[in-house]
Amino acid sequence: MKISARNVFKGKVKKVAHGAVNSEVTVALPGEIDIVSVITKASAENLALGEGKEVSVVIKATNVMIAVE
Amino acid sequence: MKISARNVFKGKVKKVAHGAVNSEVTVALPGEIDIVSVITKASAENLALGEGKEVSVVIKATNVMIAVE
Amino acid sequence: MKISARNVFKGKVKKVAHGAVNSEVTVALPGEIDIVSVITKASAENLALGEGKEVSVVIKATNVMIAVE
Amino acid sequence: MKISARNVFKGKVKKVAHGAVNSEVTVALPGEIDIVSVITKASAENLALGEGKEVSVVIKATNVMIAVE
Amino acid sequence: MKISARNVFKGKVKKVAHGAVNSEVTVALPGEIDIVSVITKASAENLALGEGKEVSVVIKATNVMIAVE
Amino acid sequence: MKISARNVFKGKVKKVAHGAVNSEVTVALPGEIDIVSVITKASAENLALGEGKEVSVVIKATNVMIAVE
Repeated sequence: MKISARNVFKGKVKKVAHGAVNSEVTVALPGEIDIVSVITKASAENLALGEGKEVSVVIKATNVMIAVE
Repeated sequence: MKISARNVFKGKVKKVAHGAVNSEVTVALPGEIDIVSVITKASAENLALGEGKEVSVVIKATNVMIAVE
Repeated sequence: MKISARNVFKGKVKKVAHGAVNSEVTVALPGEIDIVSVITKASAENLALGEGKEVSVVIKATNVMIAVE
Repeated sequence: MKISARNVFKGKVKKVAHGAVNSEVTVALPGEIDIVSVITKASAENLALGEGKEVSVVIKATNVMIAVE
Repeated sequence: MKISARNVFKGKVKKVAHGAVNSEVTVALPGEIDIVSVITKASAENLALGEGKEVSVVIKATNVMIAVE
Repeated sequence: MKISARNVFKGKVKKVAHGAVNSEVTVALPGEIDIVSVITKASAENLALGEGKEVSVVIKATNVMIAVE
């Protein structure tokens, strides 16, 4: 599957924390970047996310902001 | 300023392309990751974004999805 | 690829309109539902979107609101 | 009320699951499409969402992605 | 219509600028707050948005970030 | 820090409610506008959000919809 989201980066799951509805997933990307995602707990379970799993993070370009000092 | 968005990564602007309302900004992050952002043209001009400028990209955790093969 | 976004629906492209940075894509879903998407023009071109093409629409659950009369 | 969001579809609530802050609401649309929404629990209660209730789902076009095989 | 989005504020359109696909709409809220919205041009036309028109701005709570000095 | 998000408004925290993963933060803006934000609990704690704290709310223009009667 190829998706319209412009940003698809490969990484490895570092941590998963579950709430009642949502889960917080930390993914280690190259360049020592840790990225945090909040998805539904049902998705986290459905994708069998756990520490060490190889995943991609997917981010639509409109959801990326820019800041300057 | 410290923001609630969990993902704030430093990088360097690689390319800016303007439309009438929106601009597309490519930022090079460490680890050879190029991330694409779409912001309003007014913001791109207001932040004086241009090739080589040091910026941060800012992404709210709810806007990060996870995919597996 | 399996994605964390909870909503993935198969349909067929009905119309594509390009701007300078963004494109507007209309997709016909089952049940006579036409759904409108705005993605970057680069993505629309990269996916070779055109009338009649079979695609999936992908929507994260947090981006779905509910309204009542 | 008429809203700028391009996608407004009528359906019927199939399931509501509450967390502490958020609720997950599944809505059955025509064409046998089940769509999942995550909204605040306060909103779910305020709209008195429950199984069988007639609602509309509302999705801004920028939040719809496209994928191809 | 009552919507799940937690933030619905009444205001008056101050300015509309059209691009090919998107339009930028500035709305004056009470408290001398000017809020900027980007919606599709089709929506701006469909809602007949123009200077002075009374509108509401609608923002889902997950799309509001918090920053501190 | 200057951010590309077009909407940055100063206000004061009125209420914070924590869930397992997310927190709901209500901020009082000028003009008697109360705005509700959902951020991760980790962010709410990291920013030390509590009643009375002076903050800014930050909203990207693409996340602001317009409605008319």
